[in-house]
Amino acid sequence: MKIKISHIGRKKIKKNKKATPKKIKQSTDSELRQDIVTGDWVVIATGRAKRPEDFVDNAYSTNDLDSDIENCLFCDPLKSGQEKDTLIYSKDDGDWTLRVFPNKYPVFSRGRIPKSLSEGPYFGMTGTGYHEVIVTRDHFKHLQDLTDIEIAEVLDSFQDRYLDLMNRKSVNYITIFHNYGKEAGASIAHPHSQLIAIPVISPYIKQELEGAEIYYKSNKKCVYCTIIEFENKKSTRVVFENDKFIAFCPFSSRSAFEVWVMPKKHSPYFERMITDDKLKLAEALKNALLAIKNTTNNVPYNFYIHTSPCDGKDYPHYHWHIEILPRTSNWAGFELETGIEISMIEPEKAAKALKNSIN
Amino acid sequence: MKIKISHIGRKKIKKNKKATPKKIKQSTDSELRQDIVTGDWVVIATGRAKRPEDFVDNAYSTNDLDSDIENCLFCDPLKSGQEKDTLIYSKDDGDWTLRVFPNKYPVFSRGRIPKSLSEGPYFGMTGTGYHEVIVTRDHFKHLQDLTDIEIAEVLDSFQDRYLDLMNRKSVNYITIFHNYGKEAGASIAHPHSQLIAIPVISPYIKQELEGAEIYYKSNKKCVYCTIIEFENKKSTRVVFENDKFIAFCPFSSRSAFEVWVMPKKHSPYFERMITDDKLKLAEALKNALLAIKNTTNNVPYNFYIHTSPCDGKDYPHYHWHIEILPRTSNWAGFELETGIEISMIEPEKAAKALKNSIN
Repeated sequence: MKIKISHIGRKKIKKNKKATPKKIKQSTDSELRQDIVTGDWVVIATGRAKRPEDFVDNAYSTNDLDSDIENCLFCDPLKSGQEKDTLIYSKDDGDWTLRVFPNKYPVFSRGRIPKSLSEGPYFGMTGTGYHEVIVTRDHFKHLQDLTDIEIAEVLDSFQDRYLDLMNRKSVNYITIFHNYGKEAGASIAHPHSQLIAIPVISPYIKQELEGAEIYYKSNKKCVYCTIIEFENKKSTRVVFENDKFIAFCPFSSRSAFEVWVMPKKHSPYFERMITDDKLKLAEALKNALLAIKNTTNNVPYNFYIHTSPCDGKDYPHYHWHIEILPRTSNWAGFELETGIEISMIEPEKAAKALKNSIN
Repeated sequence: MKIKISHIGRKKIKKNKKATPKKIKQSTDSELRQDIVTGDWVVIATGRAKRPEDFVDNAYSTNDLDSDIENCLFCDPLKSGQEKDTLIYSKDDGDWTLRVFPNKYPVFSRGRIPKSLSEGPYFGMTGTGYHEVIVTRDHFKHLQDLTDIEIAEVLDSFQDRYLDLMNRKSVNYITIFHNYGKEAGASIAHPHSQLIAIPVISPYIKQELEGAEIYYKSNKKCVYCTIIEFENKKSTRVVFENDKFIAFCPFSSRSAFEVWVMPKKHSPYFERMITDDKLKLAEALKNALLAIKNTTNNVPYNFYIHTSPCDGKDYPHYHWHIEILPRTSNWAGFELETGIEISMIEPEKAAKALKNSIN
């Protein structure tokens, strides 16, 4: 399949040397460690906190995000000493509209290939990978406040960076996510998304890949295509749809007002999305985020892309999509013990409220 | 194996009718829904929130927990109209020291057997089970502030309720957990633990059971026994130990200062713990919780018991234990997308600080 990538009406400059004042030394030296029982991974990332008190006191800081535009680190990356951009989109007058640069405090550090680590019965590897930040220009306009074409530009940058990193030796999966609000993990007020390219396939993706394959083998059909067909017919959980994408509250929603945005046509690979579809996805994503904002009085949320690994294998049964998780509740002992999440509203009722808020 | 249960030096009165003013109507009508792709479960529990705004606004409330002892719901369960106790421990003068009663806002509701629910390709069942609250007498003394014998009494009550519920038809797994601090999900200041008996085996336990079985088949040894042996030999991650229990920071800690407390002798079943061991566990748990409190400036935490299911099958390869998760950080997009958690301190450094704080 030919991958058609084209930029949405803006001039793109890669690796603009003018934008970078100096090379920054990376401060993280992280390790991936595997749980010997479950096979799950954790990251031990020690770059950000030096003494125990340093991070414990800040974990539940009641300070609001710094929204002081004068001192914003992302309004003028030149001033804040961020590292060389990996991507810049600019207007015709040369002013930038979106930039991507390495995270100053990366969870994964660049390196050619991860080095295995072992200790007695345990196994791990160096935290080798890439951690980048995707910043849109306006300090106050969050994703749901942008135009469709501006959101499509963000999706375009995701795809552009994905395609650049997917074939690197250390990279087997690329995570792309967005944190909205302090309680959702955003530490800088200026709107931004993040991309972390990692050497392992994450537990949640592995579980979905396996589930999709099992379903395919039993039913000769993609499980996500089955979901789309049923949700479309039933319609009570649908929040928004156009001819290419559907946004709905999943039957087994993990949090109140959870929304999935899914391409209607079967496709395992996010990075193969064509330009027209990016505009359609922008429209669906904007409507879903606006609906959540309107319905929940601006609750913090996270969204992320779930797509096939880039480990050189094919995943024909998978179906890429976006999951939006409003942070309407906090995990307590039961959820941590079991992995069973508790949602306080029926997805059907949530979908109705979300849909009504944008119509 | 004979199960020896004996109470730790207090008079036990079961189902004390005097304590119960009236029968309370349960307000929850919950559903378990299964994720069609992963097989995971969620609970849709609608009893607590009626309108979308009701719970969204409260999810990140900045109010402190109500610590007004005059109006405490748990200081005098008679006044607050809690339902009939399922267990009371009393002193010789008849005054209570610990009581267990059904949660007024249960996530699972009592019923004989769960009823299957299906909708198109999806599957679910009624949220049938038991949800109880275990309350110690003192409004201000948290678990780590109690004496060993008082903590052993709490463990005794866990076991007592476990044994009573484990053979009910609707029960296949029993969760027991404790939330300390508002950010860890505690909604009432008065110290309490919770027990939820559920009809399904939770995803996290299933994963551990499978991992332990796979490890046993390859190595002819319990994976947890292997861990204990190695940690004991290495000793840098050990926080506390006595002749029966070991408390240590796991190699692949998911949060800073995570501690596991494990019986040294192989045992799949929490409910078979003998009285002497409860006192030893009380000592280990108290030291672990105190160490976390001392080191982290009183960070909120959750702990829970991981034990074998009570579904009538044997789990000879499993090894029950307690996991303590200090809430030193908040999940953001990366963790939600991948299931890979990020810890900001090496478990070795964390263990050293914890150990030093109690020596």
